[in-house]
Amino acid sequence: TTSRVVQAYSTTSTTSTFDRLIPKHDDFSQRHIGPAPSEKVAMLETIGVESIEELISQAMPQKIRLNRELNIGPALDENQLLRRFDEICQQNKVWRTYIGMGFYNCVVPNTIMRNIFENPGWTTQYTPYQPEISQGRLEGLLNYQTMIADMTKLDIANASLLDEATACAEAMGLSFRHNKRRKFYVDSKLHPQNIAVVQTRASALGINVEVSDREKMDFSNHDYSGVIIQYPDTEGTIYDLTTMVEQAHSNGTLVICTTDLLALTILRPPGEFGVDIAVGSSQRFGVPLGFGGPHAGFFAIKEVFKRVMPGRVVGVTRDANGKEAYRLALQTREQHIRRDKATSNICTAQALLANMAAMFAVYHGPNGLKHIGKRVHNATLILARGLKEAGHHVTNDIFFDTLKVIPVWSAETIKSQAEQKQINFYYYSDGGIGISLDETTEESDLQDLFSIFDCPKSVREIAEMVGPEPENSILQSPFRRTSSYLTHPVFNRYQSETNIVRYMKILENKDISLCHSMIPLGSCTMKLNSTTQMMPCSRTEFKDIHPFVPEDQVEGYHQLFSELEKDLCEITGYDKISFQPNSGAQGEYAGLRTIRAYLESIGESQRTVCLIPESAHGTNPASAQMAGMKILQIRVNKSGSIDIDDLKAKTEKHSDTLAVLMITYPSTNGVFDEDISEICDLIHANGGQVYLDGANMNAQVGICRPGDYGSDVSHLNLHKTFCIPHGGGGPGMGPIGVKEHLAPFLPSHPVIPVKGTINGQPFGTISAAPYGSSAILPISWAYIKMMAGSGLRHATEMAIINANYMSKRLNGYYKILFTNKNGFCAHEFILDCREFKKNSGVEVIDIAKRLQDYGFHAPTMSFPVSGSLMIEPTESEDKEELDKYCDALISIHKEIEMIEEGKLDPLDNPLKNAPHPVTVLTATNWDRPYPREMACSPAAFVIPNTKFWPMVARIDDIYGDQHLVCNRPPDTYYASPYSKLVMEKQRVKSVS
Amino acid sequence: TTSRVVQAYSTTSTTSTFDRLIPKHDDFSQRHIGPAPSEKVAMLETIGVESIEELISQAMPQKIRLNRELNIGPALDENQLLRRFDEICQQNKVWRTYIGMGFYNCVVPNTIMRNIFENPGWTTQYTPYQPEISQGRLEGLLNYQTMIADMTKLDIANASLLDEATACAEAMGLSFRHNKRRKFYVDSKLHPQNIAVVQTRASALGINVEVSDREKMDFSNHDYSGVIIQYPDTEGTIYDLTTMVEQAHSNGTLVICTTDLLALTILRPPGEFGVDIAVGSSQRFGVPLGFGGPHAGFFAIKEVFKRVMPGRVVGVTRDANGKEAYRLALQTREQHIRRDKATSNICTAQALLANMAAMFAVYHGPNGLKHIGKRVHNATLILARGLKEAGHHVTNDIFFDTLKVIPVWSAETIKSQAEQKQINFYYYSDGGIGISLDETTEESDLQDLFSIFDCPKSVREIAEMVGPEPENSILQSPFRRTSSYLTHPVFNRYQSETNIVRYMKILENKDISLCHSMIPLGSCTMKLNSTTQMMPCSRTEFKDIHPFVPEDQVEGYHQLFSELEKDLCEITGYDKISFQPNSGAQGEYAGLRTIRAYLESIGESQRTVCLIPESAHGTNPASAQMAGMKILQIRVNKSGSIDIDDLKAKTEKHSDTLAVLMITYPSTNGVFDEDISEICDLIHANGGQVYLDGANMNAQVGICRPGDYGSDVSHLNLHKTFCIPHGGGGPGMGPIGVKEHLAPFLPSHPVIPVKGTINGQPFGTISAAPYGSSAILPISWAYIKMMAGSGLRHATEMAIINANYMSKRLNGYYKILFTNKNGFCAHEFILDCREFKKNSGVEVIDIAKRLQDYGFHAPTMSFPVSGSLMIEPTESEDKEELDKYCDALISIHKEIEMIEEGKLDPLDNPLKNAPHPVTVLTATNWDRPYPREMACSPAAFVIPNTKFWPMVARIDDIYGDQHLVCNRPPDTYYASPYSKLVMEKQRVKSVS
Repeated sequence: TTSRVVQAYSTTSTTSTFDRLIPKHDDFSQRHIGPAPSEKVAMLETIGVESIEELISQAMPQKIRLNRELNIGPALDENQLLRRFDEICQQNKVWRTYIGMGFYNCVVPNTIMRNIFENPGWTTQYTPYQPEISQGRLEGLLNYQTMIADMTKLDIANASLLDEATACAEAMGLSFRHNKRRKFYVDSKLHPQNIAVVQTRASALGINVEVSDREKMDFSNHDYSGVIIQYPDTEGTIYDLTTMVEQAHSNGTLVICTTDLLALTILRPPGEFGVDIAVGSSQRFGVPLGFGGPHAGFFAIKEVFKRVMPGRVVGVTRDANGKEAYRLALQTREQHIRRDKATSNICTAQALLANMAAMFAVYHGPNGLKHIGKRVHNATLILARGLKEAGHHVTNDIFFDTLKVIPVWSAETIKSQAEQKQINFYYYSDGGIGISLDETTEESDLQDLFSIFDCPKSVREIAEMVGPEPENSILQSPFRRTSSYLTHPVFNRYQSETNIVRYMKILENKDISLCHSMIPLGSCTMKLNSTTQMMPCSRTEFKDIHPFVPEDQVEGYHQLFSELEKDLCEITGYDKISFQPNSGAQGEYAGLRTIRAYLESIGESQRTVCLIPESAHGTNPASAQMAGMKILQIRVNKSGSIDIDDLKAKTEKHSDTLAVLMITYPSTNGVFDEDISEICDLIHANGGQVYLDGANMNAQVGICRPGDYGSDVSHLNLHKTFCIPHGGGGPGMGPIGVKEHLAPFLPSHPVIPVKGTINGQPFGTISAAPYGSSAILPISWAYIKMMAGSGLRHATEMAIINANYMSKRLNGYYKILFTNKNGFCAHEFILDCREFKKNSGVEVIDIAKRLQDYGFHAPTMSFPVSGSLMIEPTESEDKEELDKYCDALISIHKEIEMIEEGKLDPLDNPLKNAPHPVTVLTATNWDRPYPREMACSPAAFVIPNTKFWPMVARIDDIYGDQHLVCNRPPDTYYASPYSKLVMEKQRVKSVS
Repeated sequence: TTSRVVQAYSTTSTTSTFDRLIPKHDDFSQRHIGPAPSEKVAMLETIGVESIEELISQAMPQKIRLNRELNIGPALDENQLLRRFDEICQQNKVWRTYIGMGFYNCVVPNTIMRNIFENPGWTTQYTPYQPEISQGRLEGLLNYQTMIADMTKLDIANASLLDEATACAEAMGLSFRHNKRRKFYVDSKLHPQNIAVVQTRASALGINVEVSDREKMDFSNHDYSGVIIQYPDTEGTIYDLTTMVEQAHSNGTLVICTTDLLALTILRPPGEFGVDIAVGSSQRFGVPLGFGGPHAGFFAIKEVFKRVMPGRVVGVTRDANGKEAYRLALQTREQHIRRDKATSNICTAQALLANMAAMFAVYHGPNGLKHIGKRVHNATLILARGLKEAGHHVTNDIFFDTLKVIPVWSAETIKSQAEQKQINFYYYSDGGIGISLDETTEESDLQDLFSIFDCPKSVREIAEMVGPEPENSILQSPFRRTSSYLTHPVFNRYQSETNIVRYMKILENKDISLCHSMIPLGSCTMKLNSTTQMMPCSRTEFKDIHPFVPEDQVEGYHQLFSELEKDLCEITGYDKISFQPNSGAQGEYAGLRTIRAYLESIGESQRTVCLIPESAHGTNPASAQMAGMKILQIRVNKSGSIDIDDLKAKTEKHSDTLAVLMITYPSTNGVFDEDISEICDLIHANGGQVYLDGANMNAQVGICRPGDYGSDVSHLNLHKTFCIPHGGGGPGMGPIGVKEHLAPFLPSHPVIPVKGTINGQPFGTISAAPYGSSAILPISWAYIKMMAGSGLRHATEMAIINANYMSKRLNGYYKILFTNKNGFCAHEFILDCREFKKNSGVEVIDIAKRLQDYGFHAPTMSFPVSGSLMIEPTESEDKEELDKYCDALISIHKEIEMIEEGKLDPLDNPLKNAPHPVTVLTATNWDRPYPREMACSPAAFVIPNTKFWPMVARIDDIYGDQHLVCNRPPDTYYASPYSKLVMEKQRVKSVS
């Protein structure tokens, strides 16, 4: 019973006396990995092997093994890591920044930062696929949708997209799906990154994008599927778009408007002049800049488009008892169901950031937001007047917070004065200067701006000249917003800190997270997200930096990028990493586009065939479709491996047009295919490239490398394998690693050239920010630095041990679907639950819901095999937790047997009625044919006092999709009888 | 329906155009204060006044009113505050520090820091007087007690004391109470602050303290009550104390040992050589230095002393259903029951810090702690050898982590070399240098030390010379610890971060806190503790500083002290503040001692009579007794005010010996006495001083000032009025404010002279650190700076409005005990519940426990009037929350009526059976004569799914005190049936 740390540093004969006397203080890997040394021994015994080495050598093909330790450097302990991060921070410079362009400084309420962003109760939740134990964040996201719909005055909003630029591209995709026209107008006054992402997306779909002045657009040919305009535009100007919208509509063209939430607090919303879709970023509602992300992009539509809207949507429905409940709606649109026919390849949202933005609105309420909006606008009015007073030309007539200024002197002069004050502007190529004010702007900031532009008067003097009701204010113009917003009580009840803290806690406590119990989702690694990894994300030097600042202000970021890139290359065997993709699906898309660009560069543009095994994640075909490829499915054989004959046949048949094989490794069936190298060779021999889906990297790190056994490109789900927490459904990060020949084609950015690109022939741009969701990259960096080579390898080994241990324990109770030739799985395994239905009527969903009564989140359900459960325990869970989970499943199996034996009613039993919320169990009326205890405390470790309770009974999905409601319904808040009495008295008094 | 902020900055005719256009971004006071503007109007209407002004002028005497705004400066918003704090931080310097002396660097696990220290779910809990909703922190504190008992090998430990020095003094007090002998030995090798505090305490109790070398102590006269020794001693040396303990015992002298928890990981514990009491600090178990505090002092005893042990003790008992449960034990010893006969005046613990220390032990486990202990010790062995190698004289033979070195050159030379490397040592007056290593010491640190002392060899070379099993190691000596410790499963199960996070979350979720609902404890202000106020406590520049560093390294601290002092003087009308008292009771004691010192200085040492109203907090008489005063009780009349006739009579009768009147204002009955000024005048006219207990400052800030109406000294409960959170039962801070004539007598410190003392004639020392729990002072500083004058005043007004509103609403259902002549209370009020017993058998405790079923914490029970509830709602709660609480109490009143009317059984009813935990309610068996719904959802706002549930049924206090258990009992952790099976198989195999 030596301690973890002692074990880790047990001395060997070669250890120096110093190292014996003063071993390392601690070893993070021993905190990260769940099982204690004695537990490991017990688990290996159950598995039936003598050693870890024996298991690994039997679970995976020997020929692909990495027979050395990863070269990461020595493991840093937690404090060394933070000291190292300190040094990196000092290389970043936090200047005052007025660049705007879709990213703004904002005041993140500290209470929201601490109680949501820095709280594992919020960050370690999974995507709310099990709504009964996710009502808290579903309510938060419904608040978000309601807020977006209100602010834009459109009917329905989704639960967020990856960023504003991808929202623009998705809107274009929707238009195209809607009317199949292949021409699309883009307002030239969009932010450049939005134009770039739209163009990139369009090029692969065969859509012809025309970037044009608003005035020159001509819809009369009925051939434009849509038009996207920006309001206020990228230079800050507000135009009347009514006529244009009418013209577009009368010619069957959809109108998409990218807009600004803060402006809409006082500006006529796009829904009021007829736009079909409004998109934008909700970053400035209380989300840190973070050098470009993660932020929640929003997407709002007229109701008519609701079934073709991309992304996740939270909807209202009822539970089995008729009680109102929330859940993800319309999931049949999504890629995991419709694959290449899906609405888009989007597989995630920015749930954590959307929740922060919604909570920002809850905390400020409509009046508080309007206060902020007016304040920013007024400051801009003063600035404009001051600039004019100094003789500069302000190009904007009506504006909200952004000005484009043509200075009387050269922009260079202004720039050098600004730099002396450590101030960033946006410098247009035409000599204009962009200045965006924001929530943080104070008098002293304005004064500094006046001084840079040599305004002869003080800010207060100019304010007097502007007067209390400025002429060119939006509020004095027809653009003034007259409609109300955020009238729902939720936006009007939590304006004291006491109340918002309680509201955040109520929501948190409705949701299961890693703080409660294991969440063993196959293919969705839910491992420890340690505090030390998360701490850097809160640092000013990382969170308060605009993505478009000059490179010399972000040397810390680049230092971290380059270290992380080096380590990820070492881990994968690739040569180059692009951090731009901010989700796994984005990574797939970027990888495929990179391959296509490469193939084109060598004159092989006819190669567009993409082979995908039928067991692949739905994002694979969806991404391939978006990349303009022709998809051919490859069969999978009974053992779960790719059907080599089928692959060979199709590869050879299409050898002239073969572009790529997309393959997941270990397979989505949880097995290391024996012949992965041969498969890669086969593809290469036929002129194709290999895209290896990195979803299952958690089974490979430190023991094999895709780059070694033949893959050309992979995305890495940093939010799974590399410890970025799931955040209740995002943020994710999906950078891609590529072999050298693909490196020149990696994505770039129109505003900030991506650093380190060599011989750049980028295929385009896929995210709003040059390095994706940069602000969360320190999490993965920290994980790798603290684990180092041996720690990372051991984590992988333990992930494999844990999976095989559970698989062995459950074998006999459940049919284990796939194993390799030696009978072992990799880091996950599949329980086939289809057989139960025949004799007991129990379906896999009943088992999943019943697990909630045991305090557990269900494994991945019906993927990759319908009617199955895929379990991925990860290395962070210890044997005791694995045993509880196994015992729960075994106990459920026993319940199924009881149904089969007639001891439980086939329809009215704990499985069919699961989950059982506490309100049901504490009611006098209990007419179930089984006792209350069986419902709520079915195992010795499930104690009603301390268990995690589901908040509602089983969700009725069909009802919700049939009666789609995506805004918060009227609420029945508690009103004191006394208040009612007082109101009644007042009514009587006023009547009499 | 304008927003809070807009309201706060509504423009007036005098507002400049600039300020109209760009008002302040936000106003913290609007976040701090609960009720929205419309709610305030409704509440005033219920109260029956037209305006806030009308209420205040009726609730308090006009003549004492402060008719101006407090002069604090303009309110800072949250971000301005943090920027300002940044500037202050930059004035502190964090050097590497080897000073030791009871304070050590340590590695605070980041996950504990974030999930306990920075988590309002832990920090905003109240003291666990309602154990059914406090089982989490009670378990944490029981872990703490178990850890202390284990490490010291004594029988019982308490739940912590304020610090090590007061623990020493309390131990002396225990000895004195035990055998009534008036002589007491103090080892001269105690830390100087411990000696000073013992001496200070002794002087007022008439105990004769002799500071002596261990060798010279002579117990043969049977006249020493006790002896206190330090092990290892302050210079680091370890002695064999066995003989001395035997000698002391054989002469009836108790032996107290102050010791070091980390040393005890490898050092023979004091319980094994017979000491009666062990004390010390648990700071180095994962609690930041914080310039001296807050830290938990520990106190462990032989079982025989359990009923005279000072401080809080958590004990095991059973609940009404016979289930094991925890609660505060032996409360009849405490001051709130026994007043001047109490065990001590201690009224609080350092619960939050004790919980952190216990969690540190849980996270490391016994092997991890031993690893750390050995590591530190080995480093010290290497250091000692290196110093000797360099020719210096190391005075210690056997040591743990501390050396006293006599350098070959002058200490000045060493000092200047150390300063160049930004390193602090302790410099003895005899030219010796003290060096204490700790958990954070690394090879590079040792190398720097070698370089300062000019050691000719490298650390690794010296390590080779020392060898792997160093001769003079404790481990090679008879001092080696052979006994095991921390064998309880709780110290052996949570060593992965995943597990510790879950354990912390399980405990957190068992406890009600301000995150859940209002906690309206009369006299224990539970208001918002905002995130922004808490953030400074996490800053390196404040938390990582040793209390004994040179003054020029802590200019930031002193800047903050001086600003806070200035503001507190402005708020109270006093002239000088001492920050040394780290609890309210300590403040009382310090104030009384200051008065006595002053009286002695003017030749009035015969003045020792202390007048105390019978309604006073029990700490008043307890503190007065400790200050060596003679206590006379003053009667309180029916209206709750002080009986002026009785006061006059006693004052005049004792005018020659009158020292002080201790009075609480507004009174503990929640009323502003009309004649407070006259009372103060009366006391002064008779030669006495006025000690105004600051417990109720929350009703005075900004509207009246003790210093104005005649008080000479007050303590300020910063942990109540000034927003330091209660932390589940500490830390508190009780600085005192005094009038100028008392200033010279304020406490000082033997190591670090207290800054700003003028004409110092200090009465002594009362805390281990010169400025008490310095690290939490930024909380109060931030509160005051963000509220500023008008915000603070308005908070007080709202506290008074909220109390009067609730009082009006409850009047008629409950008898309101005291109001002033106009019928108003101050910030709290008392419900008399004694009448109910006659007709229904319901006692006040039944009402208190029943409130838990409504999701609420009970108000203060049976203080100051037995059988009553005292409610203090505070300004942070909004009308909706107040209404819920009122509705709950009205509903309970209805239940009482139902008993009276025979509709509920007089014995078996929801009140007598309260609270109802969920395990009871979900059981098949329900034989109560009322329905389950009445038990658990008795009002419309109490929803089983979201309510806060009590963890156990009603606690059996008597059983627990009769069967006292203060260590964690053996646990029935879940063991998988599979594990049992495997073990059985192995057993069979090994047998066969």
